[in-house]
Amino acid sequence: MTAALDPTSAPDTDAALFADRYGTTHSSSREVTGVIRQQLAHRSVRSFRPDPVSDAAVEAIVAAAQSAPTSSNLQTWSVVVVRDPDLKDRLATLSGDQEFIRRAPVFLVWLVDFARLAQLADRHEHGLEGADYVESALVGFVDVSLAAQNASLAAESLGLGTVFVGGARNHPEDLAAELHLPDRVVAAFGLAVGHPDDSDASRVKPRLPQQAVVHHDRYREDTQLPAVDEYEQTIRAFYEGEGLAHSWIERVLVRFGTVGGLNGRERIGEALRNRGFHLR
Amino acid sequence: MTAALDPTSAPDTDAALFADRYGTTHSSSREVTGVIRQQLAHRSVRSFRPDPVSDAAVEAIVAAAQSAPTSSNLQTWSVVVVRDPDLKDRLATLSGDQEFIRRAPVFLVWLVDFARLAQLADRHEHGLEGADYVESALVGFVDVSLAAQNASLAAESLGLGTVFVGGARNHPEDLAAELHLPDRVVAAFGLAVGHPDDSDASRVKPRLPQQAVVHHDRYREDTQLPAVDEYEQTIRAFYEGEGLAHSWIERVLVRFGTVGGLNGRERIGEALRNRGFHLR
Repeated sequence: MTAALDPTSAPDTDAALFADRYGTTHSSSREVTGVIRQQLAHRSVRSFRPDPVSDAAVEAIVAAAQSAPTSSNLQTWSVVVVRDPDLKDRLATLSGDQEFIRRAPVFLVWLVDFARLAQLADRHEHGLEGADYVESALVGFVDVSLAAQNASLAAESLGLGTVFVGGARNHPEDLAAELHLPDRVVAAFGLAVGHPDDSDASRVKPRLPQQAVVHHDRYREDTQLPAVDEYEQTIRAFYEGEGLAHSWIERVLVRFGTVGGLNGRERIGEALRNRGFHLR
Repeated sequence: MTAALDPTSAPDTDAALFADRYGTTHSSSREVTGVIRQQLAHRSVRSFRPDPVSDAAVEAIVAAAQSAPTSSNLQTWSVVVVRDPDLKDRLATLSGDQEFIRRAPVFLVWLVDFARLAQLADRHEHGLEGADYVESALVGFVDVSLAAQNASLAAESLGLGTVFVGGARNHPEDLAAELHLPDRVVAAFGLAVGHPDDSDASRVKPRLPQQAVVHHDRYREDTQLPAVDEYEQTIRAFYEGEGLAHSWIERVLVRFGTVGGLNGRERIGEALRNRGFHLR
């Protein structure tokens, strides 16, 4: 089983890729490439075979990540490749106690990193006052995200499966201690990587119709709720296919309706300050 | 001229792609796919032909963006496709007065968007208290970045050129007024998209050696400065090839050394609060 796609796949396959991505409501675009086919076919994989991921694959995945754009070439991120089973077990516990992290042969922890610059500033007896502002944290979170998305897609193109782990933000100080992170470094998220198991049955999840998220020259609020209501039906049918009775609207309102929906991450501002990001 | 790559390119080409990405210091990986080749070949394009970007291309680019992972399927982002020349001119002025934005046939403004959820919360007489925390802003900035990176790579695979524009964060309130953004929506960055002009001579920019950014099982500070010093030579040679005398180390220290290096973006925290993100 592989997630890699034949880049020369036929128009029928393209129509199926769009249909899976939007439910059945979206016609196929005529502008499709091998890259876009790989992107459309993305699904989150949480069942992995024990087979290792090769060093060469990790090297190519990191090269893909570094090839992503980065604000003013500042490169304010790093990544820890975690393979040690005991460490991976402890990180899994800290990241929502998710078993698939333990089973993934590689767990990549993506870091917003200003410690490299702090070392340079120290050596050159230079200040680093700008790093204390919200803007600098945003630059780091944006750039590490651009990099990690390239990494995830590169891994998928190699036949690997991946899933992002926001739970790596659940206990930032404890995770930093496990990975020996210095001041001014914090985990943005994890990425579990491995060969999909034969039991993996994850499917491409439909997204909101384009009418809900795309605007032309000015933002429109009035077109969104009809598209969301259409999506509510699409995603309900998708979840029913998995034996679940889920409402997207209910789920987003539970997540953001109260502080409790943040599951402890309401203290990430404090944790960022503890890690050396002062968010001024 | 096209940025799209032949996905079946030969090993010699692969070696050249790695050499360009890291200067001459990195050997070619054996694990390369058509997707990874496209990623390695990324360069920022700022010279565009006036030829339009088709609706079908924009539709495929957005579908690629929506195919990126999104935290708990929350989809807390939107995008404005700006084609109107007068509006594009005003956005260019607000975003660092960068002429290439005016010349790009399409300027995509990527938004962190909690207004869609606010509409749902209002309709269901539900709170949205969780959206007021730093965590929710991070979810939005991460997810819109994952989406936009897919969009950029999809555009490159179609033969288009792109460049990210952090300057879209220079004047968040004014930009919001131009695009009619409601409360709880803010621009994360722009992406200029168009057909590369024949005069475009941008090259693949070398990145830090992997030793500077990749760690195994634990973070190491001691391996980084030697790799940075190696990079300083690589990037100096790259810039000299463009007739520039630039030091990477000087540039990053100028950018983050003082508040002045943030070029006005030191007030992004205040601007986010004005846009409805309270960063609690």
